[in-house]
Amino acid sequence: MAKIENIQVDQYRIPLPVVLSDSTHGDMSAFELVTVRVRDADGAEGVGYTYTVGRGGSAIRALIADDLTPLLMGHDADLVEENWRLMWWASHYVGRGGLTVHAISAIDIALWDLKAKRAKLPLWRLLGGADNKVKAYAGGIDLLFPLDQLLRQTADNLGRGFRAIKMKVGRDNMSEDIARVGEMRKFLGDGFALMVDANMRWGVDQAIRAARKLRDFDLVWLEEPTIPDDFAGHARILREGGVPLATGENLHSLHEFDHLISAGGVTYPEPDVSNCGGITVWMKVAALAAARNLQVTSHGVHDLHVHLLAAVSNASYLEAHGFGLERFIADPLIIHEGLATAPERPGHGVELDWKGLGTLHIG
Amino acid sequence: MAKIENIQVDQYRIPLPVVLSDSTHGDMSAFELVTVRVRDADGAEGVGYTYTVGRGGSAIRALIADDLTPLLMGHDADLVEENWRLMWWASHYVGRGGLTVHAISAIDIALWDLKAKRAKLPLWRLLGGADNKVKAYAGGIDLLFPLDQLLRQTADNLGRGFRAIKMKVGRDNMSEDIARVGEMRKFLGDGFALMVDANMRWGVDQAIRAARKLRDFDLVWLEEPTIPDDFAGHARILREGGVPLATGENLHSLHEFDHLISAGGVTYPEPDVSNCGGITVWMKVAALAAARNLQVTSHGVHDLHVHLLAAVSNASYLEAHGFGLERFIADPLIIHEGLATAPERPGHGVELDWKGLGTLHIG
Repeated sequence: MAKIENIQVDQYRIPLPVVLSDSTHGDMSAFELVTVRVRDADGAEGVGYTYTVGRGGSAIRALIADDLTPLLMGHDADLVEENWRLMWWASHYVGRGGLTVHAISAIDIALWDLKAKRAKLPLWRLLGGADNKVKAYAGGIDLLFPLDQLLRQTADNLGRGFRAIKMKVGRDNMSEDIARVGEMRKFLGDGFALMVDANMRWGVDQAIRAARKLRDFDLVWLEEPTIPDDFAGHARILREGGVPLATGENLHSLHEFDHLISAGGVTYPEPDVSNCGGITVWMKVAALAAARNLQVTSHGVHDLHVHLLAAVSNASYLEAHGFGLERFIADPLIIHEGLATAPERPGHGVELDWKGLGTLHIG
Repeated sequence: MAKIENIQVDQYRIPLPVVLSDSTHGDMSAFELVTVRVRDADGAEGVGYTYTVGRGGSAIRALIADDLTPLLMGHDADLVEENWRLMWWASHYVGRGGLTVHAISAIDIALWDLKAKRAKLPLWRLLGGADNKVKAYAGGIDLLFPLDQLLRQTADNLGRGFRAIKMKVGRDNMSEDIARVGEMRKFLGDGFALMVDANMRWGVDQAIRAARKLRDFDLVWLEEPTIPDDFAGHARILREGGVPLATGENLHSLHEFDHLISAGGVTYPEPDVSNCGGITVWMKVAALAAARNLQVTSHGVHDLHVHLLAAVSNASYLEAHGFGLERFIADPLIIHEGLATAPERPGHGVELDWKGLGTLHIG
């Protein structure tokens, strides 16, 4: 039995190299990283983390330190499903969503990392994967980039090995979105995998109008056309708009994914392991997608998602977006001919530069 | 303009006079109270609060202190809808549910209190109410009480003026539930308003089985038969079980209430102003219920809900449950012949004994 003996939680503010903008979150100059280190009685350690787009980090840290840590202390770290259930129900009155689930996610990731390390297996193998190569796309946060900057970023991404790229839409003037997507299609050529992301900017009928204008550009998907709460609205956008949909980065439970998928509102479910409830829930969402004949994609934290997509047989693209964290990771993800590779190191294999992060420590 | 000049947040641990138990939360010996005091540039102050069943309080406090307070500072306190929208979207990435919404709720309540005080109106009048008398029921948390203790509590509640009573169900052995409800019906007599609350204990078909056994006892409602995420399941329990349903204390957005109500899964929507998003959302849930020909009830914090139920024309019962807070309130709610009265004092009129609470202050 791998008894949980210590849980250390830390909060960091990671400045972004350039200010990023999308249609909902406005300008983002930094994100918050909350890390969790779970140590068992044998001295083995698992690492997990979650992040925010600038708010909520101290609350996630407080929930982990004051409530979830005392709850888990002394329990068997290896029993990931049982520990997840314990956290879900202990936090239920203040949970089922929101940052409560970010906190659970970070711990769940650390517990899976620890489990894989104890088994001396990389996470993707522990989870049943057969092939560690995963299709990846470059996720641009570029809504307000002038066109020349957007194309320069795109050329740079091609040079870095990407064979699939996502750009933002949702500008005040929809015709600008359409023109920019047209320029990108022209720049990339027919057949190149191109996605667009509206970050919940539109109402349902507005999204249908946009999707119809975007049809000719042969997009792999349109992402987050409207608010995540509107399951039936997504179904209408998908059917009447005629463009495949990806969404899920703002859904925080298996039940929410069930509602979305059951409504027929998504082509590519997109759980984020750092906010959907951790690896325990991410794998269930992938299973639910498989049951409905859908491929699953991911959002953010690509160093973790590369394992999860490598583990399942219904994987779509991995979103590659460093969010400024790559400079604190020993072996950041590399893309070669459009593919990312899940490492063979035990656990998720993400080694954080704790010393380097130290200067950004805020709690 | 009532510019927000200061927001003070405090966390308390309120021990309960007796240990309470229900079928999901186990034994509860204390709850956490988080209070918010918003002061405007004129020196006027509004008070809001939320609570937890023992976990999450420090995270709620952190979110309010570190993220929501800087967000609101300098804004016009009077623009409650706009301030709500600001908080919802600023916290969206870590929000849409969970304790993020408890935090928003506490601030929203304080802003409405301030608005009503500035208007020199009691909250129920500001919100459009015509009559400050509200039917109330005694909410017992008594799952593990032996029968004689349950009946003594009931006799006590009758003596305190209650003409409607709720008891817990969801024991390991369902036949014990049925027998206890039978004893209560016998004790109270035919026609007395009796409700039961299962606190999410059952699966859907188990709940239908329970509801069918409970049919003969002429219950006003069966509450929270299963998990709040299962909207379609609630619809089945309601139709196939044949007993009216109340639920909603664990739903944290207007959208979640829309899903539940649209699925036909509830008779009495039961938003809790301290965790559904505040007065701003509670009133919208009541409007949604009115649109669907449903009466709305409440959960906990009766000193606030008495105003809200008095304000709407589709009010069902007010749940009266002090949760240990009544000894820190200047004029706690009194029940007379089954009715509670919303006070005529400006705002919500809840005056907390800050000095008395001081000994329970933990952050």
